[in-house]
Amino acid sequence: MGATLVLANTYHLYLRPGDELVADFGGVHRFMAWDGPVLTDSGGFQVFSLGEIREIDAGGVTFRSHLDGSKHRLTPEKSIRIQHNLGADIIMAFDECTDPKERGAVEAALERTHRWLGLCRDEHLRSGDPQRQALFGIVQGGVFHDLRARSVEAVTAHDLPGYAVGGLAVGETKAEMYDTLEFTAPLLPADRPRYLMGVGSPEDLVHGVARGIDIFDCVLPTRIARNGAALTRAGRMNMRNLQYATDHDPIEPGCTCYACQTFTRGYIRHLVQASEILAHQLLSLHNLHFLLTLMREMRAAILDGTFADYAKQFLATYQPVAGTQEGVSAPPLG
Amino acid sequence: MGATLVLANTYHLYLRPGDELVADFGGVHRFMAWDGPVLTDSGGFQVFSLGEIREIDAGGVTFRSHLDGSKHRLTPEKSIRIQHNLGADIIMAFDECTDPKERGAVEAALERTHRWLGLCRDEHLRSGDPQRQALFGIVQGGVFHDLRARSVEAVTAHDLPGYAVGGLAVGETKAEMYDTLEFTAPLLPADRPRYLMGVGSPEDLVHGVARGIDIFDCVLPTRIARNGAALTRAGRMNMRNLQYATDHDPIEPGCTCYACQTFTRGYIRHLVQASEILAHQLLSLHNLHFLLTLMREMRAAILDGTFADYAKQFLATYQPVAGTQEGVSAPPLG
Repeated sequence: MGATLVLANTYHLYLRPGDELVADFGGVHRFMAWDGPVLTDSGGFQVFSLGEIREIDAGGVTFRSHLDGSKHRLTPEKSIRIQHNLGADIIMAFDECTDPKERGAVEAALERTHRWLGLCRDEHLRSGDPQRQALFGIVQGGVFHDLRARSVEAVTAHDLPGYAVGGLAVGETKAEMYDTLEFTAPLLPADRPRYLMGVGSPEDLVHGVARGIDIFDCVLPTRIARNGAALTRAGRMNMRNLQYATDHDPIEPGCTCYACQTFTRGYIRHLVQASEILAHQLLSLHNLHFLLTLMREMRAAILDGTFADYAKQFLATYQPVAGTQEGVSAPPLG
Repeated sequence: MGATLVLANTYHLYLRPGDELVADFGGVHRFMAWDGPVLTDSGGFQVFSLGEIREIDAGGVTFRSHLDGSKHRLTPEKSIRIQHNLGADIIMAFDECTDPKERGAVEAALERTHRWLGLCRDEHLRSGDPQRQALFGIVQGGVFHDLRARSVEAVTAHDLPGYAVGGLAVGETKAEMYDTLEFTAPLLPADRPRYLMGVGSPEDLVHGVARGIDIFDCVLPTRIARNGAALTRAGRMNMRNLQYATDHDPIEPGCTCYACQTFTRGYIRHLVQASEILAHQLLSLHNLHFLLTLMREMRAAILDGTFADYAKQFLATYQPVAGTQEGVSAPPLG
């Protein structure tokens, strides 16, 4: 499909099947038979999301497995060693993600994140292979400009091969997310990739690229596929709708993906209604194709010098899902 | 994968999405984008399996949908008209399937099945296209030789393009099934395909071919795949077993399917344990490849005149699942 990077989750692989077992199979590339680039997250986001079954201290996080309740501890050093075992091309620093709008909590998490980044880098230099695995740092600071600026300074001081903007798409409005990106991205070095973690929807990819982001990751295309939704230029399509039962068009006329080249909306709706696994496959394939095509087109438009027009046109046509754009004040596309 | 015939269920497609809708999409081939041969069953087996929510009379069966409880009626003529709408290459007569060991019930069902076959054939000649769709008749008679002989006589009197042996693999022992086949198959005309409905397991395919069967259908390869089981020359493998967690071999060394050429047992076990859809896909693919390869090898052995040796060797190696072979007295392979 032309994907240039695949994300694997450190938290999930650490618990099952275990990072040492993955290492025994030659790393995550060989384990899943994918020879393209792979990125692993640090496991931090999932662990912090565990809520009541995790406890944070200065050195790391103690938590219980969501699978069997067993007790585990993740530290900056441990996260890096797990990511060494998994063997991805890009590995992420272990950071603390908190409510982006609570200044006190954000500030405390920021200090910890910066201290932990030093520990991650030291562990990577000590036991890792920085030529083979690139460690990216993560900028935090919630929606507060001054904290973001402070974080960029602290994180970029390590002169890392890439940087992520973390702590967004976790509860703030889209306007706040776009505003934070607009402020933060230009502060990052222009010659290093910038990665917006956990994003996102088609409109967020466009708004993110407009603000200087290069890399994204999100479960959205495959998660909504399993719920029967397809991405199109006009917005999200709920394939369960009765109107598609008799529809002979492909999901999106003109789309070159296998699902659209082969099947009608009527057939795919039938598969969704009948809970056929093929529905999940075809919609996942189409949605990934849609986002990968969008990214390809944006890259081409940037090289052509026509990105602003491209973005304006895409956003004029694409109707985001109602209720997800509250507070968005159509920020400039730069 | 080299499959030469795909089965579609009349009962399921009649209820959802509806046979008229499938016809509107150009028939089941175009609906699912498969341009190879397709066979539809009559819907009878599923309707009779509904137990308490169906009622049989001389003219057909009245039943309630397992999906929404709505009331429906299936008759020989209706089944044929539905199969006309679906448009498969081979369509099946609407017959009555009952407990193969209760002589009284079997005899009553037999008379009805023979009368219904006449109605099916008349309807097919009246409103169908016998040049485009081949109507197969179904021989019933349970485990009773005299009733099977009577059924063969009545059914073959219609001079149809193919014949099925029905009413087996529904509760009788494997020995009874093989014995019934051994008696019945040779009575059928040698120049018409013989189809054993609802069978089966690898050992049953070998025993069936040994007794002159040409066509089989069964959910087994994909159903056990979804439960995490793989077919191999040695028998069925439960991929959940802990021993496979660290196993670097493919499911079956030497197998040329995509799953075996690409992934280890350890990886596939991980996918099964994590309930990943890819586990179902890969195991379905492997199991279908296994059965299609078995059938190809049997065809080649028949042409080479070495089938008896091939069958003996396969059955000497293949260990059927414990408990499914009760009463089997190793009948001759012919």
